[in-house]
Amino acid sequence: MIEILNEQNLPNLPWEDRPAGDSRPAWRYSRNPVIRRDLLPTSNSIFNSAVVSFRGGFAGVFRCDDTSRKMQLHTGFSPDGLAWTICPDPIQFNSEDAEIGRFVYGYDPRVVWIDDRFYVTWCNWYHGPTIGVAWTQDFETYQQLENAFLPFNRNGVLFPRKIAGKFAMLSRPSDNGHTPFGEIYYSESPDLCYWGRHRHVMGPVDNSWMYTKVGAGPVPIETSEGWLLIYHGVLTSCNGYVYSAGTALLDREKPWQVIARSRHYLLSPQTVYECVGDVPNVVFPCASLCDAPTGRLAIYYGAADTVTALMFAYVEELVDFTKKHSLI
Amino acid sequence: MIEILNEQNLPNLPWEDRPAGDSRPAWRYSRNPVIRRDLLPTSNSIFNSAVVSFRGGFAGVFRCDDTSRKMQLHTGFSPDGLAWTICPDPIQFNSEDAEIGRFVYGYDPRVVWIDDRFYVTWCNWYHGPTIGVAWTQDFETYQQLENAFLPFNRNGVLFPRKIAGKFAMLSRPSDNGHTPFGEIYYSESPDLCYWGRHRHVMGPVDNSWMYTKVGAGPVPIETSEGWLLIYHGVLTSCNGYVYSAGTALLDREKPWQVIARSRHYLLSPQTVYECVGDVPNVVFPCASLCDAPTGRLAIYYGAADTVTALMFAYVEELVDFTKKHSLI
Amino acid sequence: MIEILNEQNLPNLPWEDRPAGDSRPAWRYSRNPVIRRDLLPTSNSIFNSAVVSFRGGFAGVFRCDDTSRKMQLHTGFSPDGLAWTICPDPIQFNSEDAEIGRFVYGYDPRVVWIDDRFYVTWCNWYHGPTIGVAWTQDFETYQQLENAFLPFNRNGVLFPRKIAGKFAMLSRPSDNGHTPFGEIYYSESPDLCYWGRHRHVMGPVDNSWMYTKVGAGPVPIETSEGWLLIYHGVLTSCNGYVYSAGTALLDREKPWQVIARSRHYLLSPQTVYECVGDVPNVVFPCASLCDAPTGRLAIYYGAADTVTALMFAYVEELVDFTKKHSLI
Amino acid sequence: MIEILNEQNLPNLPWEDRPAGDSRPAWRYSRNPVIRRDLLPTSNSIFNSAVVSFRGGFAGVFRCDDTSRKMQLHTGFSPDGLAWTICPDPIQFNSEDAEIGRFVYGYDPRVVWIDDRFYVTWCNWYHGPTIGVAWTQDFETYQQLENAFLPFNRNGVLFPRKIAGKFAMLSRPSDNGHTPFGEIYYSESPDLCYWGRHRHVMGPVDNSWMYTKVGAGPVPIETSEGWLLIYHGVLTSCNGYVYSAGTALLDREKPWQVIARSRHYLLSPQTVYECVGDVPNVVFPCASLCDAPTGRLAIYYGAADTVTALMFAYVEELVDFTKKHSLI
Amino acid sequence: MIEILNEQNLPNLPWEDRPAGDSRPAWRYSRNPVIRRDLLPTSNSIFNSAVVSFRGGFAGVFRCDDTSRKMQLHTGFSPDGLAWTICPDPIQFNSEDAEIGRFVYGYDPRVVWIDDRFYVTWCNWYHGPTIGVAWTQDFETYQQLENAFLPFNRNGVLFPRKIAGKFAMLSRPSDNGHTPFGEIYYSESPDLCYWGRHRHVMGPVDNSWMYTKVGAGPVPIETSEGWLLIYHGVLTSCNGYVYSAGTALLDREKPWQVIARSRHYLLSPQTVYECVGDVPNVVFPCASLCDAPTGRLAIYYGAADTVTALMFAYVEELVDFTKKHSLI
Amino acid sequence: MIEILNEQNLPNLPWEDRPAGDSRPAWRYSRNPVIRRDLLPTSNSIFNSAVVSFRGGFAGVFRCDDTSRKMQLHTGFSPDGLAWTICPDPIQFNSEDAEIGRFVYGYDPRVVWIDDRFYVTWCNWYHGPTIGVAWTQDFETYQQLENAFLPFNRNGVLFPRKIAGKFAMLSRPSDNGHTPFGEIYYSESPDLCYWGRHRHVMGPVDNSWMYTKVGAGPVPIETSEGWLLIYHGVLTSCNGYVYSAGTALLDREKPWQVIARSRHYLLSPQTVYECVGDVPNVVFPCASLCDAPTGRLAIYYGAADTVTALMFAYVEELVDFTKKHSLI
Repeated sequence: MIEILNEQNLPNLPWEDRPAGDSRPAWRYSRNPVIRRDLLPTSNSIFNSAVVSFRGGFAGVFRCDDTSRKMQLHTGFSPDGLAWTICPDPIQFNSEDAEIGRFVYGYDPRVVWIDDRFYVTWCNWYHGPTIGVAWTQDFETYQQLENAFLPFNRNGVLFPRKIAGKFAMLSRPSDNGHTPFGEIYYSESPDLCYWGRHRHVMGPVDNSWMYTKVGAGPVPIETSEGWLLIYHGVLTSCNGYVYSAGTALLDREKPWQVIARSRHYLLSPQTVYECVGDVPNVVFPCASLCDAPTGRLAIYYGAADTVTALMFAYVEELVDFTKKHSLI
Repeated sequence: MIEILNEQNLPNLPWEDRPAGDSRPAWRYSRNPVIRRDLLPTSNSIFNSAVVSFRGGFAGVFRCDDTSRKMQLHTGFSPDGLAWTICPDPIQFNSEDAEIGRFVYGYDPRVVWIDDRFYVTWCNWYHGPTIGVAWTQDFETYQQLENAFLPFNRNGVLFPRKIAGKFAMLSRPSDNGHTPFGEIYYSESPDLCYWGRHRHVMGPVDNSWMYTKVGAGPVPIETSEGWLLIYHGVLTSCNGYVYSAGTALLDREKPWQVIARSRHYLLSPQTVYECVGDVPNVVFPCASLCDAPTGRLAIYYGAADTVTALMFAYVEELVDFTKKHSLI
Repeated sequence: MIEILNEQNLPNLPWEDRPAGDSRPAWRYSRNPVIRRDLLPTSNSIFNSAVVSFRGGFAGVFRCDDTSRKMQLHTGFSPDGLAWTICPDPIQFNSEDAEIGRFVYGYDPRVVWIDDRFYVTWCNWYHGPTIGVAWTQDFETYQQLENAFLPFNRNGVLFPRKIAGKFAMLSRPSDNGHTPFGEIYYSESPDLCYWGRHRHVMGPVDNSWMYTKVGAGPVPIETSEGWLLIYHGVLTSCNGYVYSAGTALLDREKPWQVIARSRHYLLSPQTVYECVGDVPNVVFPCASLCDAPTGRLAIYYGAADTVTALMFAYVEELVDFTKKHSLI
Repeated sequence: MIEILNEQNLPNLPWEDRPAGDSRPAWRYSRNPVIRRDLLPTSNSIFNSAVVSFRGGFAGVFRCDDTSRKMQLHTGFSPDGLAWTICPDPIQFNSEDAEIGRFVYGYDPRVVWIDDRFYVTWCNWYHGPTIGVAWTQDFETYQQLENAFLPFNRNGVLFPRKIAGKFAMLSRPSDNGHTPFGEIYYSESPDLCYWGRHRHVMGPVDNSWMYTKVGAGPVPIETSEGWLLIYHGVLTSCNGYVYSAGTALLDREKPWQVIARSRHYLLSPQTVYECVGDVPNVVFPCASLCDAPTGRLAIYYGAADTVTALMFAYVEELVDFTKKHSLI
Repeated sequence: MIEILNEQNLPNLPWEDRPAGDSRPAWRYSRNPVIRRDLLPTSNSIFNSAVVSFRGGFAGVFRCDDTSRKMQLHTGFSPDGLAWTICPDPIQFNSEDAEIGRFVYGYDPRVVWIDDRFYVTWCNWYHGPTIGVAWTQDFETYQQLENAFLPFNRNGVLFPRKIAGKFAMLSRPSDNGHTPFGEIYYSESPDLCYWGRHRHVMGPVDNSWMYTKVGAGPVPIETSEGWLLIYHGVLTSCNGYVYSAGTALLDREKPWQVIARSRHYLLSPQTVYECVGDVPNVVFPCASLCDAPTGRLAIYYGAADTVTALMFAYVEELVDFTKKHSLI
Repeated sequence: MIEILNEQNLPNLPWEDRPAGDSRPAWRYSRNPVIRRDLLPTSNSIFNSAVVSFRGGFAGVFRCDDTSRKMQLHTGFSPDGLAWTICPDPIQFNSEDAEIGRFVYGYDPRVVWIDDRFYVTWCNWYHGPTIGVAWTQDFETYQQLENAFLPFNRNGVLFPRKIAGKFAMLSRPSDNGHTPFGEIYYSESPDLCYWGRHRHVMGPVDNSWMYTKVGAGPVPIETSEGWLLIYHGVLTSCNGYVYSAGTALLDREKPWQVIARSRHYLLSPQTVYECVGDVPNVVFPCASLCDAPTGRLAIYYGAADTVTALMFAYVEELVDFTKKHSLI
């Protein structure tokens, strides 16, 4: 029996039971997309967004590209995780240092509760893409900290607790374009300002759905078997990138050590809303909600870089799935 | 109050009122695509085509790629701008000079009435793509003139009157492939044979829907506020180009001076017929019909490089839209 | 009157009559795709597969990419060519030489009966893609032979009889990526071990639907007019490759000599299942069934690198189509 | 006997007799380079420059890249064509139109006398490289005219007389980088402002020293056999471009018609000053001096994009060389 | 009068007076190269190396590529900075963590004295190039610390004192190939383990000798006018990269603020040993020795990625040179 | 003691003793280049050529690019291997099959005696580069056989005896450009017409002088320790390819099994004639002469793709060198 650690009771998380006759480890919400591209009148697309439990309902930080195609972050709230109200104005981060606080663009946020507050990480421009870090306690004011790394980096995801007394982050060093490579690394920090002790975690796998690059997805979920990491992997077809989602288990105290890693994808782009849009063939998970007692998991993912969709799974089944056909 | 200059009364232009509850400056025809890909039995696709008012109805020059994927130009006629009859044989251009008259391929035509005849411009092969020029008075015989420029060039669009006594053309210098750059220039000619006094008009815009390249669309519409130019802009996603449409206002006597330019796109590929086809994610406007007294505008655009579609707008609203969030 | 040579009576081949009012030389099965992507619970996609008549019904070798996106070959059986049962385990090839028998990946199989057995050819990894060769008599055990060529090669297709006493194969030399070039060659062998006398057959055609590369499709069909070859051709749009199907006639005794070759494609990606999927815009024929007395032809093709579809035609009409607008 | 037309008596042109035992059509000056890279204290390199007879001695327009590597044009004077004094300040072109007169960079000039003045053409930045045009009568003040073409263009070379009453220019349409293609075109103008009637002259030749691109060199020399054009051609080795010089004969009244074109290069980079420098392996001719009565020819060429060198030849021998192994 | 801060008296630094008649700010050693490519019998090349004053003579860390072309670091000693003895065995770094201590390759070292020891930084492989850090007190044993950053990074250069109480480093984020871009950043660390507060310093300059990329060179020299930084800049010719050296002045307390930056290069590849070698056309400074009382400066630089050369200058003249034609 | 097998007594091979004080395994001829680029008046360059002992003196097949840069093969003779007479006309190969006999270009020949005649292999165009094969007994008439493989291939080198009763060849599958990859394979043939049983021999080595590609050089020399193979390896610097020479030992009966392979290059481009020329930085060995009793070896190699040079070595020392720092 797998134990889920440090997660809340979340009986009201959005949920649909597995369809009859379907034995796959994850299944789509039948009313996807859960957030359409123009929920904001000014938006071109809303996707790759992060959701957490907040004051009995849900809050989140959303990637909303407007119709000039500027990439920005907006706050949103929902009573049930399905119907969302997104603030029309983008988030204004407070920063003590104008050099850091000058916002050029931001995208692909993650949100995580550590100790006493929510931390937001996102892909933040600073002479190129790198990892922006901020915190909030109320989703109204946000305090921006130092960027975690030098450019170029993307998909910075904090662990939900300190590990060996240090903040811990996964990230994916990149270049400044549509990076055709990408491996996941682990870094730690005593203070969210200085980062070091970088460790290689895992890279692409030849002849697989993730042979071009991989990057961390939602905040990892701690289990008695290790950290359950949902991540994206990319395959390059002759007509471009195909983004799918997969799972891995990382050691609880040395998360750069991979315990298991599923040879199979968890979800690949197969529906019209995943295959057709601004970037065809993209499934990109960024957040999950977990109800600890039941192990139910609602995973938010961007579809075709255009809309936000939901899939469901059970933590225990994902752990089994990860170990059953592991590459390790 | 904006005045529309030098446009006809065109009460019978194709038209649908704006859908209830839609506040956007342009809206799609509900029965799109207006021309399907195989309207000609021999055609693979019909798109990026030009339409004008002609003898109480409408005529046009159409890009029809046949099933060998040869790019050719065909004449078409319609009583209402919606139901079209396209001549099965491609246009045969008459030319006094065999060097110029040898037709290899032609695509993306525009048609404009100047003084006493219709002029056709198109992307014409002469050791590479350049701007072909011809005229017709009856859409039966076409007289080809000199190519306007040396290769490599695309999207040559004539203004509908001489400016300062000279013919005036917008164009987009290119290379000989799927050009990953492109800016709009203005050139003039005393005689449609010799061209000069080239001026830079406008280029791509960073972090926007048009950061890769821009090119002129339909023939500009003269208003008291300046020339209203509808144009296409291209963004490069990791899975290829995304072509959207936008608007700009150019000075009436010095059209290389940009008065306003909308930060937001007017229309981006979002419907299935715009997102799925021979080239996914393309909206490419090439012609418009304007009813001067009411300011109604019917804009023909190619969708997914496969079919021809229509959108509608009001000139005055487009001018306002252009100025409201202007980049200038 | 065209005579079909060396083909069987196959009255029970899958078939639908041409739709009323449709004059095109090939038409799609109305219930396409005939094999859906997840017919095997473990499969991501099933496409580019080969089917033959077998013991009163049909058998085949199928490309089944599993959900790790590993490319493998599976056996399948069907009573009618429409409803298929695919063996859940991939084919295990027996090989006397471990160097050759080590299976890394295999895809795009063809199957052909020669003399007394079925031969399978496929794109087989050996330090890069090359042509794997094996035989079976029962679709249960498969004996693998030497790879036909050095890497890099793809689309190896055997002729259904020896020519001038030698085994004969078409293939397409490649590189080790998403090869942006490709021409068809002819090679022969006394023993299926040593290959030589390589001859160039045909290449891409400028300004056409196949200007980037061409490769052989199903096993050629011998007629009194020559070998009828259905093949794929690729055009590169600014958003990637477009794979269409076309036809050619090759000399019966010197198949490297092209008698006729249609300027027009036979089928291009136009339906949703051809335009949307893991690789958008792909029609890729790999096998055909022919009923010699009636000339009816059922052609299996991969669609969007995701599913398997069927189209129908008459051999005699295809020969006429090939000769009518021939490039030769 | 070949007649040289419209060239001056120039008994004092720089000259060295052909070395004994050397039968090649052109030979190098024994004291090359004739202009070293730092003749100006501020220069990084002086090369690809144009020289004419002027007031009993010689004058020229020189490409001098300074030590910021800015490309500029300087005037120079010499009594003998060998010892040069170069003005330390770059040329300031006068222009009536600030849009045109704003100098960003200029390089690879040519100078030619037509009617009553010297015309200078060069590669001029105007939102990309294009052909700048100016005139001078004294090499002190220069009047800049309109750029001849839209970007992107290089190697614009005027003919030394009007042809059929029009100014005539060769040029090489380009892209905005280190263009990996290039063909020579002919264009004409009634007034040096408007240009048209563009004709293709010649392109690269497969499997030759000029298989990548070709561009015009010095001002063509009119002979009774046609215009003698010395031009550069480029081959791409696995370690970059190799620039050599060759010859062609163009029709006197229809210079876009090639009469003869030598299969062999005239000079390729073989000496240290041609093979070693800022761009290794470059021979790039830009100007020639001709003594009509004797047919002696002094050809100035840039070497390794670093220094200026001289070679010598006889016009009659070059015409013979061009015709002897002609590609036409 | 410029004051040189925190530098030693170094009367015995290698030195040659400026040649008569030469007014340029830096001049080459007349006996260059000072270290030939095969000073070690096993070396292919010795270049891009770092030298410091040590125990009355000089010591250094040298990039010695051996004849397998493996890039390694060796210690060397010299009594006069000209005649060097290089240890035949590469440096063995001690490391407490095997993950970090596994040496794959190292190149382009810098050495600097801070407080009580010498620190070495170099380009160190850890799943890609990044910045290795170690210290020594005797050039016999070296203690390796954590890599400073995630891959990919190059040209990490420590400042010779803590700034605002923190270690300070310049570096150039890169990709994993022959990076065609590169900007200099500033980062700081409390402990040489954790790094943060990354600041952008400066990037390439259009239309200049450094339009492709820039990277820090020797350890900066503190003066009353600011930190004197000698750096390399790269221009891309059609035949590859050209590496030159230039100078900048950085603010003493906020070194990410550029006070002045010379528009002109200080030295570009012009001699045979700079233009011919394993990588033609490279001047790459990595170290300097300064005699504070006289301001004499001996700058070691790699030439053509093959040998080590020396140039000389005066600090005060370099500061003047930097400010005189500053880009700022 | 190493035994040299099947090699002749060749006391008159060209030879110079090792220079005093030089301990390297190979040393250059002091009068290099042994064949200058214009030994033929019509040649641009003579390099990558093959030499054998013939009738008491020496004969060879030479790559002579003429001044049109056409690549051709010429016969040459020499009494001492140093002074050469090259036939001015290229070799005319006799072929029974016009398809094969049509000569487009040929380069990089090797010559080997097997049984009763000399065989020539070279890079031969047949719709791309592949391996041409011919034989001669007198260096006057040459009989061309089938090309060994499909395109694309280069550097085909026959073993000097049949192995296990079959002809045996090394080759390097390629693409159709300046191939950025390349591995050596082994193939065999019963008859020089049909080839098969392809085996992978060896590929590039990371972080080495041969990390981009490797290809066989001279005909292998059989020793009691295995076949001594001298081969070229390529490293890609930021300024292009660097070709060096190295050595390997292959199993005598299973030559695809590598016994030893030197980690270090044998010779890299370091002299001016190796570093400067049509392709800078190339050492490319194609032939060797061996005096069996003494083990002396004269190795001919192309330098800078421009001239032919010689180096000397002892077989025994090369075998030791290969084994001493072997990668195996």
